[in-house]
Amino acid sequence: MIEIVKPMDIEKRSFEIITELLGDRQLDPETEPVVKRVIHTTADFDYADSLHFSEHAVRRGVEALRAGCDIVTDTQMARSGINKTILSRLGGQVHCFMSDADVAEEARERGITRAIVSMERAANLKKPCIFAIGNAPTALLALRELVDAGRVIPALIVGVPVGFVNVVESKETIIASGAPCIVARGRKGGSNVAAAICNAMLYQIER
Amino acid sequence: MIEIVKPMDIEKRSFEIITELLGDRQLDPETEPVVKRVIHTTADFDYADSLHFSEHAVRRGVEALRAGCDIVTDTQMARSGINKTILSRLGGQVHCFMSDADVAEEARERGITRAIVSMERAANLKKPCIFAIGNAPTALLALRELVDAGRVIPALIVGVPVGFVNVVESKETIIASGAPCIVARGRKGGSNVAAAICNAMLYQIER
Repeated sequence: MIEIVKPMDIEKRSFEIITELLGDRQLDPETEPVVKRVIHTTADFDYADSLHFSEHAVRRGVEALRAGCDIVTDTQMARSGINKTILSRLGGQVHCFMSDADVAEEARERGITRAIVSMERAANLKKPCIFAIGNAPTALLALRELVDAGRVIPALIVGVPVGFVNVVESKETIIASGAPCIVARGRKGGSNVAAAICNAMLYQIER
Repeated sequence: MIEIVKPMDIEKRSFEIITELLGDRQLDPETEPVVKRVIHTTADFDYADSLHFSEHAVRRGVEALRAGCDIVTDTQMARSGINKTILSRLGGQVHCFMSDADVAEEARERGITRAIVSMERAANLKKPCIFAIGNAPTALLALRELVDAGRVIPALIVGVPVGFVNVVESKETIIASGAPCIVARGRKGGSNVAAAICNAMLYQIER
C-alpha cells in the first residue's frame, strides 16, 4: 500500500515514523536530532545505541559551525553529502584532500595511506575545523597523534569510519583522546553517516 | 590492538574478515562479489539476507557496463561514489539530474518529487542505462510506470533506497515489474549501497 505524502512532507513523516519506532526510548534532547538523522540516513536503529557523544559535543559542533568553521572529510562522498549551501552561508567550506595528486604521491613514497597524508595537510589549515571521518580508520589514528602532539585542536571529531581493519580501535582511541567527538562505536558508520551528522548540526542553525 | 596492514592490503584483509564472519553461509558465486562489497561498505551483515537478485542480474549488469552503458542515479553522493575512472574507460558516464534547476522548477510546478522528474529526463537518454537508486522511493515508483509504459528498458535497476515512507513498497514494485534488478529488500539501503553495487560490477571488469 503506497502512502500518499506530499514531497515536502516526506522527511517530516519519516521522522514521525522513526520516533514511533523508537518507542519508549528516551533520548537526550541535545543529541536526539543527530541520532534521528543518522537513523533516517541508514534505517539502522543500532545507531541509537552505538553513537557516543563527548560532553556537549553537539552544542560545540553547532557553535563552531555558527562561527564559520570549515569541515575536513576523508571522502568525496561525504563532501558531496554535506549541505554546502548552509555551510557556505555560515562562512565555512568542506576540504577533502584524498584525491589530490600530490597526496597520493606522498602516501606512496612514505608507504602510508592517503588518509594520513590528508590529515597532515588539514593540520596546516589556519581555521577551526570539524573533522568528519566516514571511511578511513587511519585518518582517526593520524588525528589522535596530531592532537596529542598539539598540532591540531579540532572543533569536533566526527569519527564514523566503517569497516573491519582497525575501525573499532581507531574510534576508541579518539574517545580516549579527550577531544570533543561524536563516534559510532563498533564497525558501522560510513560517509553517509558522517554527512548526516554534519547536516543534523547545520539544520539546527538554519533550514 | 592495532593490526599492522599495508595500505594496499587493507581492502583484501577486510574481505577476508567478511568471509570469516559469514562462516558456513554459502553464497551464489555470481552474486557473492556484490553481497560482500555491500557488507564492506556498511559493515551490516543484514544485506547477506536482504539483497534480492533477479535472474543473472549481476551478469547482465556487468555485460551492460562492458558494452559502455551509462548509469543514472538519484543522488550526487552516489554519483560521487561510483568509480568513474573505470566507467569512462568502458565508454559510460554517470547522470544525476536531481540538482538541475529546471528539474526542481518542474517538480514544484507539478507538485511531485524531483526524483520523478529526474527519471522522466533519464527516459529520454538515447543509451542503455543502469538505474542506481539509493535515496528516493518515488524514483523507483516512477521507473515502474516508465517500464510498464515501454518508455524505459533498463539494462538493470539497482533499487536500494533507504527510509521509512513507501521505501519497502517501492522496492517490491520493482521486483514485481520483471525488469532485471538488484534490490535491498526492507528499509535499508542508501547512496553508499547503490555506489557499492555499481563498483562491485565495475571491479569485475577491471581494477
